[in-house]
Amino acid sequence: MDVYDAMQTLNACRYYKPDPVSDALVAKVLNAARWAATGSNNQPVTYVVVRDAAKRRAIHDCYQPIWDTVIKKYASGEIKSGFSSSFLQNVDHFARHFAEIPVHIVVCARWKDLTALDASLDRTVLTPGSSIYPAVQNLMLAARTEGLGTVLTTLLVLAEKDIKKLLNIPDELATAAVITLGWPEKPFPEKLKRKPLSEIAFLDSYGAALPSAGPPS
Amino acid sequence: MDVYDAMQTLNACRYYKPDPVSDALVAKVLNAARWAATGSNNQPVTYVVVRDAAKRRAIHDCYQPIWDTVIKKYASGEIKSGFSSSFLQNVDHFARHFAEIPVHIVVCARWKDLTALDASLDRTVLTPGSSIYPAVQNLMLAARTEGLGTVLTTLLVLAEKDIKKLLNIPDELATAAVITLGWPEKPFPEKLKRKPLSEIAFLDSYGAALPSAGPPS
Repeated sequence: MDVYDAMQTLNACRYYKPDPVSDALVAKVLNAARWAATGSNNQPVTYVVVRDAAKRRAIHDCYQPIWDTVIKKYASGEIKSGFSSSFLQNVDHFARHFAEIPVHIVVCARWKDLTALDASLDRTVLTPGSSIYPAVQNLMLAARTEGLGTVLTTLLVLAEKDIKKLLNIPDELATAAVITLGWPEKPFPEKLKRKPLSEIAFLDSYGAALPSAGPPS
Repeated sequence: MDVYDAMQTLNACRYYKPDPVSDALVAKVLNAARWAATGSNNQPVTYVVVRDAAKRRAIHDCYQPIWDTVIKKYASGEIKSGFSSSFLQNVDHFARHFAEIPVHIVVCARWKDLTALDASLDRTVLTPGSSIYPAVQNLMLAARTEGLGTVLTTLLVLAEKDIKKLLNIPDELATAAVITLGWPEKPFPEKLKRKPLSEIAFLDSYGAALPSAGPPS
């Protein structure tokens, strides 16, 4: 599949068929994650693929109360969003059926192989993610190429302690995300909706128009 | 270009031709970054494309002393790595010629549109990067597809204050990375070298073999 086609149709898949995903395909999309660059080529990222039904149920049991708290904040306006109620229903469907999604992939990162370069700045650190989430994007693009749906969720870091215990993840690793993987029940979008390039990219000075940024698309 | 081919040949390009990169190509690879998913679809990432020679020289002047400190730590063994001296010479060449690379892309992120979900945990936060670096990976994969070389560096966050002033980046934004972009002087690799899948991916329990992970490759 063409790179651009994969990118512009890679949506968050919140409805899955119950059909199993083969070992070969799981390995193929994880293999794609391997190629991503990491700081000093330290390759800090590892993965636990969860297929065991009882463990997926246990992960669901971690996810549900976290999501219930979030959706209440959306409903009350405590978290502001432009989300429609039908969109929130989709996300709620995803949460309620989390255990049924055939594959959960827990993304781990080894602390000693991550560097928080910006820890000396007086702000939240961002850079450790630069050695983690490019690999996650590779994984999800590969899944899209194979016709598989994914969702990236970081909510489960709030249950990191329980997830690590459940999957025997060593102390020296963090959990950075969970990716759900399965066959989508609905078609992929023809093209995602995003802010136009002219609103997000500038030339030589913030706010200065970028040539060829073109009209909204 | 096929997704997998782009991923497994996307190296850090440290030698560039002086040839210019067209506006249309710069816009094309930035456009690819737009599609990446972000938490709550908040789309926090924006970009300043730096073509102006004086500004690229000013960015170089930020980069050089940071790199000089790093390479001294490699040389003294303060930072342990398996890097050969020829590899370090390549990276040093990159640093010394930073200003000559035709395009620098400063990746910014709007704080209010980032959520540090894991800020409540007793560890360094990782999750804000999940709404930044997938877009960066899209950008670099698109560049690879076009035959353009890139390097992702996070070292320049250490000069965030100066870079923001130079490019009029508003206070409410962080800098998360700088990507260099240009025509590579050397061919892309046939396939990158990484840890084998069997060492990084497990089934249902950390350390348990993943079926189909196969031999080292």
